Amino acid sequence: MAKAPVLTPQADDFPRWYQDLINKAELADNGPVRGTMVIRPYGYGLWERMQQDMDLRIKEAGAQNAYFPLFIPQSYLTREAEHVEGFAPELAVVTHAGGKELEEPIVVRPTSETIINEYFSKWVQSYRDLPLLINQWANVVRWELRPRLFLRTTEFLWQEGHTAHASYEDARDYASLIQREVYADFMANVLAMDVVLGRKTLKERFAGAINTLTLEGMMGDGKALQLGTSHELGQNFAKAFNTQYLSKEGTQEHVWQTSWGSTTRMIGALVMMHGDDNGLRVPPRLAHVQVVVLAIKGDDEVVAKVREIGDRLKAAGLRVVVDDRTDTPFGRRAVDWELKGVPVRVEVGPRDLEAGTAMLARRIPGGKTPVALDSLAELLPAVLEEDQAQLLRESRERRESRTVDVASIEEAVEAAATGWARIPWADLGPVGEEELAQQGVSVRCLVTKDGGVPDSDDAPGTLAIVARAY
Amino acid sequence: MAKAPVLTPQADDFPRWYQDLINKAELADNGPVRGTMVIRPYGYGLWERMQQDMDLRIKEAGAQNAYFPLFIPQSYLTREAEHVEGFAPELAVVTHAGGKELEEPIVVRPTSETIINEYFSKWVQSYRDLPLLINQWANVVRWELRPRLFLRTTEFLWQEGHTAHASYEDARDYASLIQREVYADFMANVLAMDVVLGRKTLKERFAGAINTLTLEGMMGDGKALQLGTSHELGQNFAKAFNTQYLSKEGTQEHVWQTSWGSTTRMIGALVMMHGDDNGLRVPPRLAHVQVVVLAIKGDDEVVAKVREIGDRLKAAGLRVVVDDRTDTPFGRRAVDWELKGVPVRVEVGPRDLEAGTAMLARRIPGGKTPVALDSLAELLPAVLEEDQAQLLRESRERRESRTVDVASIEEAVEAAATGWARIPWADLGPVGEEELAQQGVSVRCLVTKDGGVPDSDDAPGTLAIVARAY
Repeated sequence: MAKAPVLTPQADDFPRWYQDLINKAELADNGPVRGTMVIRPYGYGLWERMQQDMDLRIKEAGAQNAYFPLFIPQSYLTREAEHVEGFAPELAVVTHAGGKELEEPIVVRPTSETIINEYFSKWVQSYRDLPLLINQWANVVRWELRPRLFLRTTEFLWQEGHTAHASYEDARDYASLIQREVYADFMANVLAMDVVLGRKTLKERFAGAINTLTLEGMMGDGKALQLGTSHELGQNFAKAFNTQYLSKEGTQEHVWQTSWGSTTRMIGALVMMHGDDNGLRVPPRLAHVQVVVLAIKGDDEVVAKVREIGDRLKAAGLRVVVDDRTDTPFGRRAVDWELKGVPVRVEVGPRDLEAGTAMLARRIPGGKTPVALDSLAELLPAVLEEDQAQLLRESRERRESRTVDVASIEEAVEAAATGWARIPWADLGPVGEEELAQQGVSVRCLVTKDGGVPDSDDAPGTLAIVARAY
Repeated sequence: MAKAPVLTPQADDFPRWYQDLINKAELADNGPVRGTMVIRPYGYGLWERMQQDMDLRIKEAGAQNAYFPLFIPQSYLTREAEHVEGFAPELAVVTHAGGKELEEPIVVRPTSETIINEYFSKWVQSYRDLPLLINQWANVVRWELRPRLFLRTTEFLWQEGHTAHASYEDARDYASLIQREVYADFMANVLAMDVVLGRKTLKERFAGAINTLTLEGMMGDGKALQLGTSHELGQNFAKAFNTQYLSKEGTQEHVWQTSWGSTTRMIGALVMMHGDDNGLRVPPRLAHVQVVVLAIKGDDEVVAKVREIGDRLKAAGLRVVVDDRTDTPFGRRAVDWELKGVPVRVEVGPRDLEAGTAMLARRIPGGKTPVALDSLAELLPAVLEEDQAQLLRESRERRESRTVDVASIEEAVEAAATGWARIPWADLGPVGEEELAQQGVSVRCLVTKDGGVPDSDDAPGTLAIVARAY
């Protein structure tokens, strides 16, 4: 007898499958104010692990954490013309506080370029103060018309880096360093997500930037999702906020700046990249729960044994949860851990104890095999690394097999129904980009033929990757 | 010739000294919106270390991190009558978003009891779901009429714990566990701050609580500062939000709850508890920079040597910064590190190299002595522990020497000019508390004769600690 599916199957309705998974795996709930979300402990555990790893990388890149206010005077936003044009429609505005109407309305930060520049202009005096490399972990608010949990929420959590440099080249190189070492390497090697590093077109750039680097991932349904981005801001904000330094030569110069961000959207990407009809599959290097040791029955000996195994695996450096809640049926607990995508389950019952074995259930390749209890601590680290590699491989194979080279806009739109298309940017250009946009397809990024990042939009041989996107 | 003081001396003007120190040690700046603050990297580094240590303690106490929305529908606040009365005057309200006026105004969270109860009422079904132990690290907003950096800011950072339990006793015991293990022990053993653990009077309780436990610290000027608090919420919010569970006996019961919080105010406490006329003194166990190794001159050999020493001390597990910015005068850098309160400076010049020594400058006891370079890695951990103990001792001695037993309200007010007074609560009572309040003095907490926490306000022998407070 076939079991009723736990989730809406991906093939039936991918968006519904996504929503089902988020709720049933207890990653998040919708918040009461439209577009907000409650990140539940299991989902937040994924974010904490992302933060820890990225924070080390950010510090390795020389940036220091700080914290700037949530509230920005409305007048700041208007100082950089493109910036305010980009963000004005998404702002949440505080008009009353402390029981009174405010003289100047306050904007809840949608991003912090403006308020940070106000302080950079005070802190930066001389070339000795450069580069100034700042990061913050914070919440931001952008009013969303079509919210979706983790992907587009009115409030989301992120890190935003903001830096000031003495020259264009220094700023450009730093944006590139962040994009490669903090974002791309992390996504490939920790999140096991294949991502394409490219350059945004003028249309898709951050509001106020002279160049935006992006990472684009292909989701399970063939659509694209923009992940971390790094922006070269040129001197746009420096001029708007008068952020200048005294050069070695004794002249006053405007600084060159970057900003870069990555968000809780990465949790949504993880779901849509690695999830299947049974739930999430969490890459072992990220997982806050790598192994769950389950007591099948509430037998005293079994419960004592699962705790002992749990302790032994923790001592071996694994991140382990012991599930001895035997007043809940085993089958229900097993399905729940499968939904949550814990890479390995070690299942122990009375019969296993007699044989000195446990059942090893692997979430990523699937399948169950009995293993000797004594071998677990040695076996599991290798199993987890194998699973990590498999997820990255699957994600790369999906992108490769579902990306096609095309020669016309019609072919590009057709390809975008199931995956990505690659087309020479010279054949497309801003006009072709606009035509695509009218059919719901966008240029995700520009790349060179050998997968590098072009120096400019019109570098010869530049290819556009086009797709439908979240 | 006497040096001009770097800071306004404490004895001249304590509040001005505080403000000077915060700015000159680069801990924080005032934000552009009244009462907000920019936490600069050196100040934020202190907060990160506090977070790391407390987060481990919170997890040790069984709570899991999650994240609830910044935006709360205004109607939620009004469901618990005392709660809304307490917070209404301090709320910031979003009335417009996405270019439109909102149908229902949104409150920027001043604390999260209401929105969290909305979800607890969904998540808690049966006694099996209890206790439910949740914590979040977040920003909150309370409109402040008399803001002061770190002590009272419109926006501040904190952790707020929220728990639900099956019985009154479980909730009471959990609030007490948090107050002792997460807050009091952390403040004494990491922040080196002597604090008094007591019970708040009815007047001073959290809005909506049936009991509030507090920690009160005596600042350098003899005033009190309230630090971490834990609240027993009884069933007040459970009834307002209908948070019920099915008991083992098959009946529907309201849960018993706690909430507890500690904030960036602890950074202000650190300044006012340990700072002196030369700047901050950071307790070594907290310090993100425990040791700074300074090159006195820009000689190649000296610079190579300070880097080598820095690496060696890092390898010994110390948190070290190497200061080889020899284009800035040595004296200015030394004063700056003194302002920032780094516990130990290792100063290296050409003459020291010849002798195989360095100058060891200790911020906490003061003074400089030459030490052999080879002995540093072994010597410093003991030096730092000694300094840690000294700070705690000084803080305890200050509190003990400046607390007096009094028998009348007049004496209490007089004592509060320079320190704290202790008076039997039976002699004071709510009427005496009101009289004190009219003279700017408050009951900080109630304690038992032997320094414990009374079970109720009217337990025989209860003492009130009264003081002026920040």
